Amino acid sequence: MHITANDPKRKTWLEVPENSDFPIQNIPFGVFLTRDDIITIGTRIGNYAIDLGALHQLGYFKGIPLTDDIFLQDTLNDFIADGRKTWRTVRNRIADIFDINNTTLKNNEEHQRVILFTMDEVEMQLPVQIGDYTDFYSSEEHARNVGEMFRGKENAMVPNWYHMPIAYHGRSSSIIPSGIAINRPLGQKMPKGAKTPIFGPTRALDFELEMAFITTDANNIGESIPAHEAEDHIFGMVLFNDWSARDIQRWEYVPLGPFLGKNFASTISPWIVTLDALEPFRTEGPKKNSEYKLLDYLKTEGKKTFDIKLEVSIQPENDEPTLVSKSNFKYLYWNMSEQLAHHTINGCPLNSGDMLASGTISGSREGTFGSMLELSKNGENPIKLSNGSDRKFIQDNDTVILKGFCENKDVRIGFGECSTKILPHL
Amino acid sequence: MHITANDPKRKTWLEVPENSDFPIQNIPFGVFLTRDDIITIGTRIGNYAIDLGALHQLGYFKGIPLTDDIFLQDTLNDFIADGRKTWRTVRNRIADIFDINNTTLKNNEEHQRVILFTMDEVEMQLPVQIGDYTDFYSSEEHARNVGEMFRGKENAMVPNWYHMPIAYHGRSSSIIPSGIAINRPLGQKMPKGAKTPIFGPTRALDFELEMAFITTDANNIGESIPAHEAEDHIFGMVLFNDWSARDIQRWEYVPLGPFLGKNFASTISPWIVTLDALEPFRTEGPKKNSEYKLLDYLKTEGKKTFDIKLEVSIQPENDEPTLVSKSNFKYLYWNMSEQLAHHTINGCPLNSGDMLASGTISGSREGTFGSMLELSKNGENPIKLSNGSDRKFIQDNDTVILKGFCENKDVRIGFGECSTKILPHL
Repeated sequence: MHITANDPKRKTWLEVPENSDFPIQNIPFGVFLTRDDIITIGTRIGNYAIDLGALHQLGYFKGIPLTDDIFLQDTLNDFIADGRKTWRTVRNRIADIFDINNTTLKNNEEHQRVILFTMDEVEMQLPVQIGDYTDFYSSEEHARNVGEMFRGKENAMVPNWYHMPIAYHGRSSSIIPSGIAINRPLGQKMPKGAKTPIFGPTRALDFELEMAFITTDANNIGESIPAHEAEDHIFGMVLFNDWSARDIQRWEYVPLGPFLGKNFASTISPWIVTLDALEPFRTEGPKKNSEYKLLDYLKTEGKKTFDIKLEVSIQPENDEPTLVSKSNFKYLYWNMSEQLAHHTINGCPLNSGDMLASGTISGSREGTFGSMLELSKNGENPIKLSNGSDRKFIQDNDTVILKGFCENKDVRIGFGECSTKILPHL
Repeated sequence: MHITANDPKRKTWLEVPENSDFPIQNIPFGVFLTRDDIITIGTRIGNYAIDLGALHQLGYFKGIPLTDDIFLQDTLNDFIADGRKTWRTVRNRIADIFDINNTTLKNNEEHQRVILFTMDEVEMQLPVQIGDYTDFYSSEEHARNVGEMFRGKENAMVPNWYHMPIAYHGRSSSIIPSGIAINRPLGQKMPKGAKTPIFGPTRALDFELEMAFITTDANNIGESIPAHEAEDHIFGMVLFNDWSARDIQRWEYVPLGPFLGKNFASTISPWIVTLDALEPFRTEGPKKNSEYKLLDYLKTEGKKTFDIKLEVSIQPENDEPTLVSKSNFKYLYWNMSEQLAHHTINGCPLNSGDMLASGTISGSREGTFGSMLELSKNGENPIKLSNGSDRKFIQDNDTVILKGFCENKDVRIGFGECSTKILPHL
């Protein structure tokens, strides 16, 4: 089926600010609380939040096989489980409803009153109930940078790294949507040279610039998904900030991996941008290192990643944000198809709403690193903010803002913001 | 409130076989599919499955503040979220309903027909929707045994081990109830001396003898639970077999911990035995190693663990099971209160239905180890089965059966079986 929603010439009768992340070609999916305290599934065009539950009740999805309550839910899980054909049909229909040449809703102010909200009238929620969350480690530059700091230059790249997309399981319960402040976490740390650990707030609070994809019900236990089928099971993507407390992480992570150094919070952007919307921005990833023979189940061909520009800013309280990093999703060594094929090769089941994050996305040049650990060289080279202060790691009352967008001469498809303020420890 | 359900003198009008794990003093909670294809929440006495949804509809819980549909659900999550007072009141009431001196249901055959099933008429389901699953590493003996094999004698005990209950996040989606067969998983392995990894079925399939506890909604993000309050947030316990593919695990686990070597399956016993039922079997755990100064948030006092006898048997196809290990839950160095306090010290939220497993429970003597890796010394000393065959690891068509029970002169409280058959790889 053709993705007519992507037509770059299409215009909408809704007002869309110049340079908006959400033109009519985007049509992401999210969940929000309306001014009437109702939670509903919706989409966004420009600065309008659109209630899909209301659209459905008023008959705008006529002819599409959807259950009556599919959009009157707290999460997108059931809609995602309906599969790619349904997502695409609904997205195409939404594009038609808001097309500048379609007067049905455009001329029905009564309907508009229950369907349209301005973004400042709604409160974004988590878009899915996340059953399981996996975090990959798929940026070669990040793995090398962090490996050097944690294990020394000799042992920076672990022997398995080029043979598989390394990953670990993270914590679903502490994933929060953009806009919710968190407290600086407490924990155990072993200061350099100390004989016994100390307890207190982390002194090395860090962001990790990541993206995550959300799956549909992909497989039953025992079954594998071949890499060439993987994208059929991916609904869409969000920005992902995998908050990390480096001092806690460093002391705890051998031998079983990160735990309390990570599981106090991760932040996502609330609108899931579909793979369909990203289609015009397909690109090839880095060439695989030819020194390492790749096993067949991990081989992919063609344009299996996306050119998504990424930015991180730090905003001190009552001050302007400073852009501290620019990276790109396409830098990742392992793509989503390879990640998904690897994750299921042993029969591990993926369900609707599962979230698979990329790992920190660093580029190779200065200013393209995806964490303070790398940007400040573990605190040795603090970075300057525009207000004159400097940062080794994130301070109390700082807000960290991730942004992501794709752009060509015709259209810009963006993810909005993934923003979190750090409050002092409790 | 007194736990009257624990009265060791109480007898029931239902028939209970001698040595049953499920006397009227147990009253565990589970979820089952009935002969009428209805999923309901229930309990078990002897070999009877008791439909709590039907009991509730027929008015047997009158006077207890419960929502109408609390037992007419696919999972226990909402009931668990109701909190300890509710669990205890319901459990006491169930004891009264089936008390030998209570004739109300005993003399009502019509009610019995919709309330009582024999165990062979029902199909046990997962008792909870598991939001997050965490696996600890709390047996000193297991950590030492495995550490020696994976990292050598010098590095067996990692420096942080005595300072905190080490843990990692596991996979919720592949947790299955007892009785479901699984296929041998495929994956990458790096044979000794090889230069490049090979692909194929695991040749080192292992069980891990564990127990897990299930929490209620314990805390909001950012909040910690003090160790002395931890048990208020624990609903009950199950047997837990954390299936492991040692060859896959060994090749992948540095630096971020176990992933595909573990996440293909874990099996639980389907009846959750409440902490209340285990109360008579409280005991003290091992003394903490005085060489290591414990941080305050991890200190607990008194009897914070339970004397639960554990057994593992391997049953080849069409043959008798052979008992291969006897261990005890009380051997664990870190208790559940310490685990829960540690897990939340950084503000990580625990929700109703979350599962926290102990890690492999090994004793100090031969024949008390909780995995084949330890029992067979990584395959060097195969163990003999009663049919004359031997095992380095688990073979196709073997069934691994975990059992657990508490016993004193008055009563036996058991967990039933946690059993899984291994099928050949797909």
